[in-house]
Amino acid sequence: MTVTVVGSIAFDAVQTPHGGRERMLGGAAVHFSLAASFFDEIRVVGPVGDDFGDEEYAVLHGRRVNTDDIEHVTGGKTFFWSGVYHENMNARDTLETELNVFETFDPKLSQQSKDADVVFLANILPELQLNVRKQCERATFVALDSMDLWINIAKDALIAAISEVDCVILNDSEVELFTGEREVVAGARKIMQHGPQAMVVKLGKYGAALVTPDDSFWVPAFPVDVVADPTGAGDSFAGGFVGCIAAHGGDASFDVLKLAMAYGTAIASYNVEEFGTERVARLTGAEIVERVEELQRITSFETLEVALKA
Amino acid sequence: MTVTVVGSIAFDAVQTPHGGRERMLGGAAVHFSLAASFFDEIRVVGPVGDDFGDEEYAVLHGRRVNTDDIEHVTGGKTFFWSGVYHENMNARDTLETELNVFETFDPKLSQQSKDADVVFLANILPELQLNVRKQCERATFVALDSMDLWINIAKDALIAAISEVDCVILNDSEVELFTGEREVVAGARKIMQHGPQAMVVKLGKYGAALVTPDDSFWVPAFPVDVVADPTGAGDSFAGGFVGCIAAHGGDASFDVLKLAMAYGTAIASYNVEEFGTERVARLTGAEIVERVEELQRITSFETLEVALKA
Repeated sequence: MTVTVVGSIAFDAVQTPHGGRERMLGGAAVHFSLAASFFDEIRVVGPVGDDFGDEEYAVLHGRRVNTDDIEHVTGGKTFFWSGVYHENMNARDTLETELNVFETFDPKLSQQSKDADVVFLANILPELQLNVRKQCERATFVALDSMDLWINIAKDALIAAISEVDCVILNDSEVELFTGEREVVAGARKIMQHGPQAMVVKLGKYGAALVTPDDSFWVPAFPVDVVADPTGAGDSFAGGFVGCIAAHGGDASFDVLKLAMAYGTAIASYNVEEFGTERVARLTGAEIVERVEELQRITSFETLEVALKA
Repeated sequence: MTVTVVGSIAFDAVQTPHGGRERMLGGAAVHFSLAASFFDEIRVVGPVGDDFGDEEYAVLHGRRVNTDDIEHVTGGKTFFWSGVYHENMNARDTLETELNVFETFDPKLSQQSKDADVVFLANILPELQLNVRKQCERATFVALDSMDLWINIAKDALIAAISEVDCVILNDSEVELFTGEREVVAGARKIMQHGPQAMVVKLGKYGAALVTPDDSFWVPAFPVDVVADPTGAGDSFAGGFVGCIAAHGGDASFDVLKLAMAYGTAIASYNVEEFGTERVARLTGAEIVERVEELQRITSFETLEVALKA
């Protein structure tokens, strides 16, 4: 199958308690692509400027990501974000956001990208997400990510986009902002009333929940020794999650969705161990499988006999 | 087996986004006792004042908790705490803490309480915890809870107490405060260097982690429709956790500890659905088992075949 992802391609500058980088490859579409590349053929759609060169393409090509639909805007500069993570790593302050070529991004999909079986609409303007969704008529599974900004200023457009996808991926604070519901399951189901049959609620360093109309599934974050840089963790998760579904022919049965949660969790855990794309760029399939199996082990328990008192 | 718990018995006043109570039965030892009462014979040790009467004893006796070692301080008033939970329910502000009879509490254990096989040292002055620990010579499994206050002002005494117990239960922010470690497993293992072979790290509304010298296990909070009042959730968890270990003869093997995590999670999830002890006081064993089995279901996944690309 082919997976098309539409979203940001960026240079990031970050400072975390474990160090920093002045300029590293990033962006939702990049992190997603690298993670999803373990499962299927990935086509990435997004804009870059003149500062995006061979070194950056080499990272994507190193994982056989198809970059034909990366749009090079001559005279432009690539999207740039810089931020500082707080001591506890679950919050960050943005120092600078230079949208640059991303500001006027209007996704142009080649026929091959439109023909994808599985599509990921990374966090961009909801109108553009809907536009892309409509172009990908053959897609059997489409997932969408968003952010607080669009919930605050473009909620109707976001709802219009959500109503055309199969799965929405948000973090728990975004679900609460969207719905006013504190509880993950209740909030997710309110969003799903607009159409999607599944929702992933990311819980930051605490893991993620999958919610369907009549079930839920919970995974912790995979415990790592050091979280060096959380940037891109959510998009790496989405890449593993959506990629796993693509590897199952776009089948979004509950069993496949649950396994997809585990793959997303495993790849995200590698992502955070080093800065930017550094770790995932040299990740192996065997390493991913190792953590999926370990994740299963550290969340399983036997219901031994217990005689409870009335 | 017999389980002895030493800790606070209180009246609480709380306000949450779902309402409030002016005066409800509470305290760590009370919440623990009610939860643990499903597994074994529970003896509760703690001080009360003249305001603690038949109505309160009836709640404990309703679950067959042995109250012989509740110390009635004539002329005294029972420990009182009042607080307000924030909108997101994961934080609260204390309005008033009246230690009252708790201020001069010096645990006096009857021989039966000293002879317990399993002991829970709820959050009290670390010196008193160590003192009680030493009196319970026959205990095969002793668990200890504490709080940020003692980590800040009595860390050496806390370490002395920790070094004499089998399991420490803290929340993740307390582990970080204690050790300076952001990662749960690394922080827990630093604390375990003082002696304990197991540690439970509570993650608030996100669940809990069990850490042993060479393994870990993770459970989410059981998803409920409404969290009415989180007061006592941690101690209900501890009651289910320690109770389950007692029901297995004090066996703290990894399989039993994992199941104990599930029982603690299940009972805590009932605790938060109503105010104070209201829900657990009328809980049934069948309801607990139902959520333990459901918890197993919503955390399990099959590792279906996935052909990963190099």
